[in-house]
Amino acid sequence: MSNESAKAKESQPLSTQGYRGTRDFHPELQRLRSWMYANIKLVLESYGYEEYAGPILEPLELYASKSSEEIVSEQLYSFEDRGGRKVGIRPEMTPTLARMVAARAKELIRPIRWYSIPTCMRYERPQRGRLREFDQLNVDVFGGTALDEDVEVLLTCHDLLTRLGAKPGDFEIRINHRGLVDDLLFGTLNLNPSQKAPLLRLLDKKDKLSIESFREEAAKLWLTPQDTQTLEDFMSRPLAEIRSLLGEKTVHLDALEERLACLTALISPECVRFDASIMRGFDYYTGLVFEIYDTHPENRRALFGGGRYDNLVGAFGVDPLPGIGYGVSDVSLLNFLEVHGLTPALKRNTDVAVIRFSEADRAAALSLSRDLRNAGVNVETTLSATKFGKQIQWAERTGAKAVVFRGEEELKNNSFACKWLATGVQEIFSISELDKFVAALKNPIS
Amino acid sequence: MSNESAKAKESQPLSTQGYRGTRDFHPELQRLRSWMYANIKLVLESYGYEEYAGPILEPLELYASKSSEEIVSEQLYSFEDRGGRKVGIRPEMTPTLARMVAARAKELIRPIRWYSIPTCMRYERPQRGRLREFDQLNVDVFGGTALDEDVEVLLTCHDLLTRLGAKPGDFEIRINHRGLVDDLLFGTLNLNPSQKAPLLRLLDKKDKLSIESFREEAAKLWLTPQDTQTLEDFMSRPLAEIRSLLGEKTVHLDALEERLACLTALISPECVRFDASIMRGFDYYTGLVFEIYDTHPENRRALFGGGRYDNLVGAFGVDPLPGIGYGVSDVSLLNFLEVHGLTPALKRNTDVAVIRFSEADRAAALSLSRDLRNAGVNVETTLSATKFGKQIQWAERTGAKAVVFRGEEELKNNSFACKWLATGVQEIFSISELDKFVAALKNPIS
Repeated sequence: MSNESAKAKESQPLSTQGYRGTRDFHPELQRLRSWMYANIKLVLESYGYEEYAGPILEPLELYASKSSEEIVSEQLYSFEDRGGRKVGIRPEMTPTLARMVAARAKELIRPIRWYSIPTCMRYERPQRGRLREFDQLNVDVFGGTALDEDVEVLLTCHDLLTRLGAKPGDFEIRINHRGLVDDLLFGTLNLNPSQKAPLLRLLDKKDKLSIESFREEAAKLWLTPQDTQTLEDFMSRPLAEIRSLLGEKTVHLDALEERLACLTALISPECVRFDASIMRGFDYYTGLVFEIYDTHPENRRALFGGGRYDNLVGAFGVDPLPGIGYGVSDVSLLNFLEVHGLTPALKRNTDVAVIRFSEADRAAALSLSRDLRNAGVNVETTLSATKFGKQIQWAERTGAKAVVFRGEEELKNNSFACKWLATGVQEIFSISELDKFVAALKNPIS
Repeated sequence: MSNESAKAKESQPLSTQGYRGTRDFHPELQRLRSWMYANIKLVLESYGYEEYAGPILEPLELYASKSSEEIVSEQLYSFEDRGGRKVGIRPEMTPTLARMVAARAKELIRPIRWYSIPTCMRYERPQRGRLREFDQLNVDVFGGTALDEDVEVLLTCHDLLTRLGAKPGDFEIRINHRGLVDDLLFGTLNLNPSQKAPLLRLLDKKDKLSIESFREEAAKLWLTPQDTQTLEDFMSRPLAEIRSLLGEKTVHLDALEERLACLTALISPECVRFDASIMRGFDYYTGLVFEIYDTHPENRRALFGGGRYDNLVGAFGVDPLPGIGYGVSDVSLLNFLEVHGLTPALKRNTDVAVIRFSEADRAAALSLSRDLRNAGVNVETTLSATKFGKQIQWAERTGAKAVVFRGEEELKNNSFACKWLATGVQEIFSISELDKFVAALKNPIS
């Protein structure tokens, strides 16, 4: 670079825009996310789920082996590190989960109930509900019986949304079984096993395609128009009709009915139903598959997606460990809260603002602040001695209930003045009455 | 790849090792980290600091402009995305902080008190206290007067470590002032301003070099042996002697003494002292610089590092906004807790284990579990109906205080049985007495 172009560059200000598809969490938004995660954690811990975490970077071969082909070939952020090692930025947590569980498969007490809220990245065109960077809550359980695990995992979805303020009509748990799809593809339609994986991916995105495009894509996968028609029929039918469509091959329907019966005994029946169109894109699902739909007219979309897998850890050379799990992104959850009007107005946690007016009262303000904090009070101390009115204004914006200060008079009398912001009432407390003040703060009379 | 080599690859199990210099947080370790972060957040929020967060990936030019040269040229994970955009994985939070504050500089209420605990990555040789992936707590304050801000920020360091269980002798806050160094370099030694940045970096790493290497490096930066000797002297002297060394140029010494006086009035005097050898590597520091040292003989090292900067946001074309901040990694904090024996024994939060014995009691177990959760109890439900003894064993490992079940008898009588694990005592509660059971659980008599 010539000296002149270097100078031109120096004088051009840096952009305050972040990288495309990422978000800046200024404190107001971060407070909302923290509130959401705290509630999610309370629900999951009430079921005995334990939090885990793993690296944001994994060896490329882990994703190449465990992630979906679409993710690896189109969305993964992969590169070589300075030592020539090929790595990828986490696009989903399941490969790391599988690696971590496989590493300790022998010593982990069953059932294994784990959750995590990792940051993930996928190279995609940013759109509503979908960004390049997102957090994804992952909940998984291994080592129990399928029915018990399936019911519990679906209950946690219901409880998470309920805890965040959702009511029964706000969302719907839609369940299906991969075995049913197998019955149809191989029992009824007599397809070739090699057609399965691409066909499942096509069925998974059916809703996003026009009916013509769907039929064209199906033809490309060697389906006859009649087979395609049967598939379309299948995907729109209620459970009872599926039974007649598939004839005797109904063991998976029994499984679905069992799960529906368990769930509707515990939660509002309008929260859960069978949906033959639920497929999920990942190859590794082998049993129940499900999505939680937002029913709001402005946000009809799948929020959560998950399913049962029989052998997530097999690639690591350990014994199969069946389980079930799901993922939901913070982007989807924040959208859900927004469209349903469930976003709470969250305030800062400041209880008291300690203000001061000169160089002389700094030490007194600092020691009073320290004593209040030691008594469990959240205190913001002023960081410059400006005018009283201006500092009161500032204190009001911190959300504090009381403003406290030690003017000349109070310093002389070993006391402090308190102005209750809700009423404007002013009170004097002796320094030795700190407890009395703290009690008044926690149980305001007015 | 030939079919055969593809097969060979398929049959070779995937490694359960993560990428070098990263950690897997199995639940026990994650519990410790969550406990640590929860305590840190409590302390910072007691001072009015608000949490923020930003992207793990930023445009490369942000780091090129705002991060240290060592980080950008040697440690940054940088690459091109699929669209040809040059990006870097966050090696430190300060550039993102500067970008975010600059973006809203006009509307943010002063003082701005912010903290974040971002995951960061640096390509380094992993060693004790230093990994490639780490979380780094960042605490910054802008928009107050320097003395007030400096004192507050140092107090938060003290309170964080104290809250985590540290005692006064366990750590030491060591402070210095960049202005003092300037006085020495330009006032006493009459060096050229271009020598400053490389010399500060050399002084910052002096402790890691032999005295011979240090002198060699100093000579390379055009220092005479006598200048080097003066520098060495300076770095080892107490405050009073520095005053005589620098003669009349003592305004920065006054500033340091003012801060020491404020701090020692509030915290144990053995927690804080002047140290002329503290430099910090970043160019952007302009005032107070500091490190918090672990005094444990097995872990003598800087845990926290930080300093005052006058113009962090200037590169974005907004008005200067002076402030002060620091960073400390979770790796350092976990080491600190470990060597001082401060790592708590943390249990899972499970209160009750609900067990069952047949296909017939599943619904009853599930509804009892639901009712207990609704009453605020953390419940693990068994996920397979095995033998009583085996399930009791499992329940003991969950940390539950009580095991609860509904056998044939209890189902008939609309009751449930409870076995208190601490005493082995068994009790029967009517389903309508759930409140009584919950009260007994929260206030065990024995």
